[in-house]
Amino acid sequence: MAKKVRIGMLGAGRIGKLHATNLVNAVPDAEVVMIADPFMNEATEEWAKGLGITNVTKDSEAVFANPDVDAVFICSSTDTHAEFIVKAAEAGKHIFCEKPIATDIKVIEDALAAVDKAGVKLQVGFVRRFDHNHKKVRDTVASGMLGAPSIVKVTSRDPEAPPMAYVKVSGGIFMDMMIHDFDMVRYLSGSEVTEVSAYGTVMIDEEFKKYDDVDTAIVMLKFENGAIGVIDNSREAPYGYDQRTEVHCAKGCVQVANDLNDTSMISTADGVVCEKPTWFFLERYNNAFIAETNAFVDAVMNDKEVPVGGIDGLMPVKIAKAAKISLDEGRPVKISEI
Amino acid sequence: MAKKVRIGMLGAGRIGKLHATNLVNAVPDAEVVMIADPFMNEATEEWAKGLGITNVTKDSEAVFANPDVDAVFICSSTDTHAEFIVKAAEAGKHIFCEKPIATDIKVIEDALAAVDKAGVKLQVGFVRRFDHNHKKVRDTVASGMLGAPSIVKVTSRDPEAPPMAYVKVSGGIFMDMMIHDFDMVRYLSGSEVTEVSAYGTVMIDEEFKKYDDVDTAIVMLKFENGAIGVIDNSREAPYGYDQRTEVHCAKGCVQVANDLNDTSMISTADGVVCEKPTWFFLERYNNAFIAETNAFVDAVMNDKEVPVGGIDGLMPVKIAKAAKISLDEGRPVKISEI
Amino acid sequence: MAKKVRIGMLGAGRIGKLHATNLVNAVPDAEVVMIADPFMNEATEEWAKGLGITNVTKDSEAVFANPDVDAVFICSSTDTHAEFIVKAAEAGKHIFCEKPIATDIKVIEDALAAVDKAGVKLQVGFVRRFDHNHKKVRDTVASGMLGAPSIVKVTSRDPEAPPMAYVKVSGGIFMDMMIHDFDMVRYLSGSEVTEVSAYGTVMIDEEFKKYDDVDTAIVMLKFENGAIGVIDNSREAPYGYDQRTEVHCAKGCVQVANDLNDTSMISTADGVVCEKPTWFFLERYNNAFIAETNAFVDAVMNDKEVPVGGIDGLMPVKIAKAAKISLDEGRPVKISEI
Amino acid sequence: MAKKVRIGMLGAGRIGKLHATNLVNAVPDAEVVMIADPFMNEATEEWAKGLGITNVTKDSEAVFANPDVDAVFICSSTDTHAEFIVKAAEAGKHIFCEKPIATDIKVIEDALAAVDKAGVKLQVGFVRRFDHNHKKVRDTVASGMLGAPSIVKVTSRDPEAPPMAYVKVSGGIFMDMMIHDFDMVRYLSGSEVTEVSAYGTVMIDEEFKKYDDVDTAIVMLKFENGAIGVIDNSREAPYGYDQRTEVHCAKGCVQVANDLNDTSMISTADGVVCEKPTWFFLERYNNAFIAETNAFVDAVMNDKEVPVGGIDGLMPVKIAKAAKISLDEGRPVKISEI
Repeated sequence: MAKKVRIGMLGAGRIGKLHATNLVNAVPDAEVVMIADPFMNEATEEWAKGLGITNVTKDSEAVFANPDVDAVFICSSTDTHAEFIVKAAEAGKHIFCEKPIATDIKVIEDALAAVDKAGVKLQVGFVRRFDHNHKKVRDTVASGMLGAPSIVKVTSRDPEAPPMAYVKVSGGIFMDMMIHDFDMVRYLSGSEVTEVSAYGTVMIDEEFKKYDDVDTAIVMLKFENGAIGVIDNSREAPYGYDQRTEVHCAKGCVQVANDLNDTSMISTADGVVCEKPTWFFLERYNNAFIAETNAFVDAVMNDKEVPVGGIDGLMPVKIAKAAKISLDEGRPVKISEI
Repeated sequence: MAKKVRIGMLGAGRIGKLHATNLVNAVPDAEVVMIADPFMNEATEEWAKGLGITNVTKDSEAVFANPDVDAVFICSSTDTHAEFIVKAAEAGKHIFCEKPIATDIKVIEDALAAVDKAGVKLQVGFVRRFDHNHKKVRDTVASGMLGAPSIVKVTSRDPEAPPMAYVKVSGGIFMDMMIHDFDMVRYLSGSEVTEVSAYGTVMIDEEFKKYDDVDTAIVMLKFENGAIGVIDNSREAPYGYDQRTEVHCAKGCVQVANDLNDTSMISTADGVVCEKPTWFFLERYNNAFIAETNAFVDAVMNDKEVPVGGIDGLMPVKIAKAAKISLDEGRPVKISEI
Repeated sequence: MAKKVRIGMLGAGRIGKLHATNLVNAVPDAEVVMIADPFMNEATEEWAKGLGITNVTKDSEAVFANPDVDAVFICSSTDTHAEFIVKAAEAGKHIFCEKPIATDIKVIEDALAAVDKAGVKLQVGFVRRFDHNHKKVRDTVASGMLGAPSIVKVTSRDPEAPPMAYVKVSGGIFMDMMIHDFDMVRYLSGSEVTEVSAYGTVMIDEEFKKYDDVDTAIVMLKFENGAIGVIDNSREAPYGYDQRTEVHCAKGCVQVANDLNDTSMISTADGVVCEKPTWFFLERYNNAFIAETNAFVDAVMNDKEVPVGGIDGLMPVKIAKAAKISLDEGRPVKISEI
Repeated sequence: MAKKVRIGMLGAGRIGKLHATNLVNAVPDAEVVMIADPFMNEATEEWAKGLGITNVTKDSEAVFANPDVDAVFICSSTDTHAEFIVKAAEAGKHIFCEKPIATDIKVIEDALAAVDKAGVKLQVGFVRRFDHNHKKVRDTVASGMLGAPSIVKVTSRDPEAPPMAYVKVSGGIFMDMMIHDFDMVRYLSGSEVTEVSAYGTVMIDEEFKKYDDVDTAIVMLKFENGAIGVIDNSREAPYGYDQRTEVHCAKGCVQVANDLNDTSMISTADGVVCEKPTWFFLERYNNAFIAETNAFVDAVMNDKEVPVGGIDGLMPVKIAKAAKISLDEGRPVKISEI
């Protein structure tokens, strides 16, 4: 391995820019050597130059072909993820891929097979696992100090509903939004989900119905280890990004509240006003994005296991599919059906 | 109406003693004129005398026959509730009845019919509606300041599992424990439950299985107004009685945490230790018990509507039955099926 | 001792009524046998009858002369406290006396001498020692688990400034309001105050100046055990009664926050609103009033030491006097000067 | 002005390294062009190279002489601050100087005069003004929404006492530690301090006495606007860096609590354990260090007023001197005496 892990970026949209900036400013062992984006333009080139990255291209193939690239960051549109994984694997590059790998199970499985065959590392971008709060819940449960988990709870609400143009192509609330929470419950419980039951409703915007989607959903889950759980999602929490997790165990309960903008309490005759949660995922998971990138670079550089692997990319997609079937058919759905 | 509402107590067990004590010490407009309990003994007589109540008997009929009794408190065993309601109604007495009225729907309906026919008042003992925290959630939702509710959440965990002798005759977790939460979600949402889906697991004590019961359960609910909700129950939370409610609405979210023993924070190198929730329902709902009793006495004295009426006694039983079927049959169950 | 401690009340004003009600409703081992108040009138008689107390009089001497009175509650105006203590002591009655005993040191010392001579019990009404929060701070410090205390902090603010008619005769902020906190720091630290330095300012109402008083004050304190401390007082905190205490020790810190009306959090785009502290001392120290009365009755009935004795009545008055001199003369003042 | 503000660093110790790293990674409008440190060695050169800074020297004069340097960061030992300010001013460089400028009033005043004469900008490193929490307190007070401030409170405790070698040359608790809080109370109150009274005690380590120092101190303050205040300091809070501020005003109170490592609550039969405050100033004020540097660079680049100017460097030193005299002489000391 070179002294630094040399990264080729695939995609320079919002999340690609975020990862590139973190890699340059906050991941000492990484070096971004090139960026490919089919929509590469002058503004993006200027932005890249500001980070000291001068090798920019519209051609993703150039990344796979570049012998100076040790690893790729796949931050392109979802429909390219699986294809790029396969190409990167075949080129012997390690892979960091944004979630989801794909929405089709077979496509994911084929991509994972290519990764296995090539013997490269693949980390999937479930960033919340690196959040100080959720990690504390997981570590507490995993330590065994509270005994066996029995109830796993996740609340996850976005501050504002996305535009309908986005909703239309999002894959629906389970695949687009709750998928993070499906990953989270696996992470927190240390166990696989075996069955789900979903309820959904449209309370925010009637237009969700047009796209066979809901804006508010609750999903119950059964786990292999006997625990049960529940996730609630809302597309709109006007007070900010609501991200809470909790695991009830035999000897006690561990839970985390939101991170707030500040710790102020302003007390007047009208009441006591505290700060709201940090606004959205960029604010809330800012440090987690840096941590996941460092973890990947560390895994590559020191040949360690990645903390979020291929199976972690596959299972939440299966659970999301099961949840959609449950909602549509009004019945519990086993993950083994998927 | 007399200057004070004259009460006849039926049952002098734990809950009967609690109500009698509150009536004497904390309900200025009430007067306890007699107490009937089939197990009346010297100790109980002594206790009654301490409260200034000298008319004690083993014969419940004496209460119904007593012209000086304006209202009865039915605190006897559950299987006598419906019968006592009918007798009290026929005797023209107003009725405060501990929950549940019965576990059989027909029996409840017959009792409610007797109440209606007699034109007396009936209040059911869903004490949590009178808790300062839950009431605040309900009042906030009911005020409309947060817009329409979309997600209703209730967490309810007992500090320690009851003895198996109790579990055996309890009617199961839904009828015995979650019934309070079924009432709560109706109260908080201001809407009727239309369907439930239940998951349950045995994580605390394998013996629950013997009695076709679970010790840990999650139930999802649909409401008439389009909202959805979830309740989680555990028979054992070693840190104390865990009683939290939350309603997410269009414009915001209202939630309440547990009452704690005190507000202390002890900070050392080992961490920051805060107080646990108040231990169990007697501690947590102490003031709520007083408030519900005052509310009943006020309704009787001033001919107001009772705050928790017959329908509130009936619906949670239906929901509990639906939840049990859902758990047993592994499918969502509509309340209209019951 | 009789089966119950038979109490004679002296004074039926706000605080006298409070104690009488608590004694009747919440102190099982006490019995109120008579009430004397020079302003006894029909309304008060009616109120007393409601509590079952029929022996009412304008003549305080009748209390001292009554052989059926085991103990007196001195709830009359401050200028009568010392005299009543002496008379009660001479009559062999145990004494609960509201604070302060007097504002003159010699008068207090004479009263305490009479108590000593008679061998009766005297408890002074520093009710905050019985509050669950402050007691927890004290118990934690006293347990030694945090090592030696080094900084003692008390914040005490009233919700609204008293009327000027009251301010005029109050004895000033130190004697009327901060006296509770002078008791509190002795209680929390387990040590005597040796010196104070006071700063004061008029920020709420210029009229305080007319009465040589301030409405806002901070006092630093030195303790015999080497610790130092600080108290801050404001006559007006529009958000409610602000009562916080904190002790920093060698191994950690213990602190308590206010009791709130409820635990609600209402989150909207405008912020997160929590409840205010309970409004004033009647709400905040409601249970503490009951506890102090039970403690006194227990001490009398079972011949135990009272938890707040004569020295606890004397020292805060000395500290208050020292604080006033410090404010007036702009210098630290030793308690030994008083 | 060049497209970026070109910075010359003076000092490459802990705080110099911190600022240089922030300037490179987190201040887009700045460029570090050289670093001077009399103890420059290979390790430091390597560190600088890692940041892309190749111009390193032992000679501070080279910084002042470099025409490519727009501004200097004075991060050298305290005894060089004033001299470097004068030299930088004479060379026409803008200046960011770590606190304190000096401990001698005349020396500070001469340095400020040189800055004034040269017309360059000087910002003093009181970093806590840029903390999200304290800033919120100040902004709330400054907005006027709470009316006039009456009580200003600051708690500031370090997690562990410094080594005695440091204490010996530290200048004492007021000049070394509480100086930050003296700046803070000016910032929060928006008013100048006019008088202080100090209490101090040695509770942590008897050795403090050897150096005529204390390890625990409380200082009361009077402000020009009529408010009063109090600061408490401890050299050791084993639970972590305790940094709380509070301002009580006519219409309400604003206060901030500590930042915690995470928001977890672990509830068991033993109690509810929450996280400790972030460990020390590097963790707590990490973002504030970045913010103050950006603010300085912004002021230079866009010719704005610096947020912490020369007077802010002078006044806390005067207050610290007054506090020491107060402690030594046992009397209040007016700032005008200094």
